[in-house]
Amino acid sequence: MDRSKIALFPGSFDPVTVGHVDIAKRALKFFDKVIVAVCVNEAKTGFFPVEKRIALAKAAFDGIAEVLPCTEIMADFARSVGADTLIRGARTAADFEYELGLCEINRRFSGVDTVVFPTRPEYFHISSSYARELIRYKKPLAGVIPDGAVGLIYKEV
Amino acid sequence: MDRSKIALFPGSFDPVTVGHVDIAKRALKFFDKVIVAVCVNEAKTGFFPVEKRIALAKAAFDGIAEVLPCTEIMADFARSVGADTLIRGARTAADFEYELGLCEINRRFSGVDTVVFPTRPEYFHISSSYARELIRYKKPLAGVIPDGAVGLIYKEV
Amino acid sequence: MDRSKIALFPGSFDPVTVGHVDIAKRALKFFDKVIVAVCVNEAKTGFFPVEKRIALAKAAFDGIAEVLPCTEIMADFARSVGADTLIRGARTAADFEYELGLCEINRRFSGVDTVVFPTRPEYFHISSSYARELIRYKKPLAGVIPDGAVGLIYKEV
Amino acid sequence: MDRSKIALFPGSFDPVTVGHVDIAKRALKFFDKVIVAVCVNEAKTGFFPVEKRIALAKAAFDGIAEVLPCTEIMADFARSVGADTLIRGARTAADFEYELGLCEINRRFSGVDTVVFPTRPEYFHISSSYARELIRYKKPLAGVIPDGAVGLIYKEV
Amino acid sequence: MDRSKIALFPGSFDPVTVGHVDIAKRALKFFDKVIVAVCVNEAKTGFFPVEKRIALAKAAFDGIAEVLPCTEIMADFARSVGADTLIRGARTAADFEYELGLCEINRRFSGVDTVVFPTRPEYFHISSSYARELIRYKKPLAGVIPDGAVGLIYKEV
Amino acid sequence: MDRSKIALFPGSFDPVTVGHVDIAKRALKFFDKVIVAVCVNEAKTGFFPVEKRIALAKAAFDGIAEVLPCTEIMADFARSVGADTLIRGARTAADFEYELGLCEINRRFSGVDTVVFPTRPEYFHISSSYARELIRYKKPLAGVIPDGAVGLIYKEV
Repeated sequence: MDRSKIALFPGSFDPVTVGHVDIAKRALKFFDKVIVAVCVNEAKTGFFPVEKRIALAKAAFDGIAEVLPCTEIMADFARSVGADTLIRGARTAADFEYELGLCEINRRFSGVDTVVFPTRPEYFHISSSYARELIRYKKPLAGVIPDGAVGLIYKEV
Repeated sequence: MDRSKIALFPGSFDPVTVGHVDIAKRALKFFDKVIVAVCVNEAKTGFFPVEKRIALAKAAFDGIAEVLPCTEIMADFARSVGADTLIRGARTAADFEYELGLCEINRRFSGVDTVVFPTRPEYFHISSSYARELIRYKKPLAGVIPDGAVGLIYKEV
Repeated sequence: MDRSKIALFPGSFDPVTVGHVDIAKRALKFFDKVIVAVCVNEAKTGFFPVEKRIALAKAAFDGIAEVLPCTEIMADFARSVGADTLIRGARTAADFEYELGLCEINRRFSGVDTVVFPTRPEYFHISSSYARELIRYKKPLAGVIPDGAVGLIYKEV
Repeated sequence: MDRSKIALFPGSFDPVTVGHVDIAKRALKFFDKVIVAVCVNEAKTGFFPVEKRIALAKAAFDGIAEVLPCTEIMADFARSVGADTLIRGARTAADFEYELGLCEINRRFSGVDTVVFPTRPEYFHISSSYARELIRYKKPLAGVIPDGAVGLIYKEV
Repeated sequence: MDRSKIALFPGSFDPVTVGHVDIAKRALKFFDKVIVAVCVNEAKTGFFPVEKRIALAKAAFDGIAEVLPCTEIMADFARSVGADTLIRGARTAADFEYELGLCEINRRFSGVDTVVFPTRPEYFHISSSYARELIRYKKPLAGVIPDGAVGLIYKEV
Repeated sequence: MDRSKIALFPGSFDPVTVGHVDIAKRALKFFDKVIVAVCVNEAKTGFFPVEKRIALAKAAFDGIAEVLPCTEIMADFARSVGADTLIRGARTAADFEYELGLCEINRRFSGVDTVVFPTRPEYFHISSSYARELIRYKKPLAGVIPDGAVGLIYKEV
């Protein structure tokens, strides 16, 4: 497969949300394949352990994107899976400002480029931190966590 | 050609800069074709007349992208040229915030999506308004206006 | 009427949109009355003449808010109509930053305070400039211009 | 009491500052009552324990607002105390961007609305984190912590 | 005089405000000299003609900074008056974002550097556009236009 | 030495980067001396212990700036070392917004002023957190950590 047509979608997906799935679907309009990289950030512990985050992402991206764990520096990982481009969503000016810096880091590191999808207004309020808040208080997750994954949230992996 | 693999790059290109050409080149990594739409904004007069802007863009995007004038609403125009996606560059948080609104307008209008390329730091200071400032003071334009177009700037079209 | 319970909603309303009407309705939850001030900015000509903007606003805010022309400095006008508070909508970080400055100016001038309503995501892409764009291209205005006003847009006032 | 005239002012108040009190006072111009909700964030430990934060808030808002602990999701809590509106202060563009997301979350959750008060310039530099910094270094707190609460800061509750 | 100790303060000063004078005074703490450059922007007409803007600036900066008209590109002008550094005030995130671009343009052009002074909260609401609004409505200008200049505002130059 | 000509450059320098050194060099164009203050933030543990951060900073700023540990409130420390001005770099709108608040805090505290250097585009992507990421993955540090310090990173202090 032409590596420039493979998009890598990195994130902590702690947990995956319907907003994440929307980004992957939009990317598939012009990328041949999307690979979701569930990143382990050594500097902080997640809400869900990485295995659970991967299980949720696999359920959510089923038939849409491949899901892989990533324990390397992002740009190295992109190269190793044959992707030339990273895709990211951004909801706000602050989100984008953060991406500007990351984009340059990744380009310098191994030449991978980044494109940003503006979050759609109907997903504007949805984020992993909002999902965690709902989970903490045992609230319904429909419309926030993708259908395939919602059933796994309160289950043992 | 698969319409979802055609990207429309709209703007006023008044005038085209090396930053614009960089965006188109980056998009060509995963789009099959880029069409540059030189937009006429009825609400304000440009620095260069639209014919001149088109001539400059044609010289700058030669071998990279097709250049067309656009006098319609963007989303209609995208549909009429067979493009499902708009591409835009954004240098700053404020640029992106502006794109967030446009992206939604265009999606509502005819379903075209938008992806944003973070401007590379080496082009950060380059904009059409900077180019106009240089032109006003008859300054050298190398590195700001693309090579193919720079010779046409002070010429009659 | 207790002047502190009257809210003044200033703007150029060029033209009024469904987003404006939403702000007024939200304010009426805790203000007793909303007065819409259609401001004349001497420094720039509007798209619609002020009489037309007032006619559209009157149709849009019918039964919701009183509509008055404003040719004074805002803070003076607020005082003259018996309002202690200005209400404003803000869609983005940039919008709010602009309001921060205006809020202090108005407070210094005559003690009126300002409260800001975060724009709802479903109105995020709607603005007077978007409406003008639609009008320029003779596009349908439903969902952008309030029902009561849409019929007047292409009519002589 | 008409529930739409009751404002809920949520925050961590760790500790309360003169800026917080200013927001409540401004809200009382058009709300009949302000309830301060001292929120417990299970995801992070505070500088002060929640009991101390409540004691400080009670002293600071004495005669201005009722102070209650909140261990629920905000929107549920607002409903349970009979408030239809949340009030928040915002000092910067970034603050407001954060509120935009929260506002939508709370509206979706239980229909409560949010209004934002632009921070006054004289309180611009004042925040709970600044107050904590002063407390860490045992600096004078006048003008930062409200008069009623300042005497309790270094005391056992 | 050591050119690196001379600061150039460029702007349109249309008109000069107390905020501008504050920036120059702060700069004089570590620069040996401040030169105010009243810039003529060929792309737009000012509120006051440039001669009036210079007269007002001379009155306002009397004993603080030299005032010169600037009709060149800023970086050239800085060099011609022997200044290695530009000074600018910024009130907001948006202001600073604008300066980031200008700073790089000027550095590329002739190596002059830029330093930015964060506007003090007491001057936060003060800007030339606010001053113009006050002048349009013939309002008192004390505290907005510097004392030395306020008497000249309504006079023929 | 004239205290107003001494600049204090505070930060956590965890670790020092080439971007930090660039700010100090730019400041030395018009300040007589730069003192680097390696701050200990009691509220969070650093990546490197403060002794290591100081050792790295000393190596990086050798011949450019004096390096001192700072365990006091910044404004007090500035006074104690005879500096009237703080210098800071800012890469983004968000960075500057943060500095606006700090600047006012420090001025209120002991009258020290702050000037901000816009980060140069070539250092835009460089930050201490990026450096830490590189160190975590044992990547080459050239161009990110200053030459003098890079050799000490993986060594015992």
